[in-house]
Amino acid sequence: MEEGQQQAEDSGQRSEKKYRKGEEHTVFIGNKPFMNYVTGVVMQFTTQRANEVIIKARGKFISRGVDIAEVSTKRFLDNTAEVKDIKIDSEEFENKEGKTVRVSTIEITLSKK
Amino acid sequence: MEEGQQQAEDSGQRSEKKYRKGEEHTVFIGNKPFMNYVTGVVMQFTTQRANEVIIKARGKFISRGVDIAEVSTKRFLDNTAEVKDIKIDSEEFENKEGKTVRVSTIEITLSKK
Repeated sequence: MEEGQQQAEDSGQRSEKKYRKGEEHTVFIGNKPFMNYVTGVVMQFTTQRANEVIIKARGKFISRGVDIAEVSTKRFLDNTAEVKDIKIDSEEFENKEGKTVRVSTIEITLSKK
Repeated sequence: MEEGQQQAEDSGQRSEKKYRKGEEHTVFIGNKPFMNYVTGVVMQFTTQRANEVIIKARGKFISRGVDIAEVSTKRFLDNTAEVKDIKIDSEEFENKEGKTVRVSTIEITLSKK
């Protein structure tokens, strides 16, 4: 099981493309520089005038998603936005070797105060 | 900032001792084998007859905390327990070099259905 876990974590980044269709005001966390995502979140609220922004992450990127939510709201948006809702879930899929692996997901909804 | 982030993540494990005082039915995630934590959560509900179990993790262990919540509820407790609440927050502290670092935290409350 640890092995399956590891494989799932390695593929955490897949989310970036999979989710991107027709979802406005959503930021998908991968392994780009940390500040790219923070800027992305902050700009949704400022230049894009979003009322809500959803941060989505999978596998090992979940920790990063939480960091980005915290830094965006507390340091950059100066508490004008807050965490409104957090959901966690799992997805199962077959890897290249035909083995079923499970990966956890998180969705953090930030909202203007 | 990336550097501060990294340092914060490295110390994510500190939580294990810091939080352990007087908190029943709480499982603190560190780098022990994955199944130790799953067993810990499941046994709180079964042999300890807890109605709620709180999973706490910091820094890079946040992803692991989510994995443990998902595997415990969906695979081992067979959906007799569910995620009731999730909170994220940040803590700041001084590292050995006197530099202030920030670390994210998560608390996942599982509850009997």
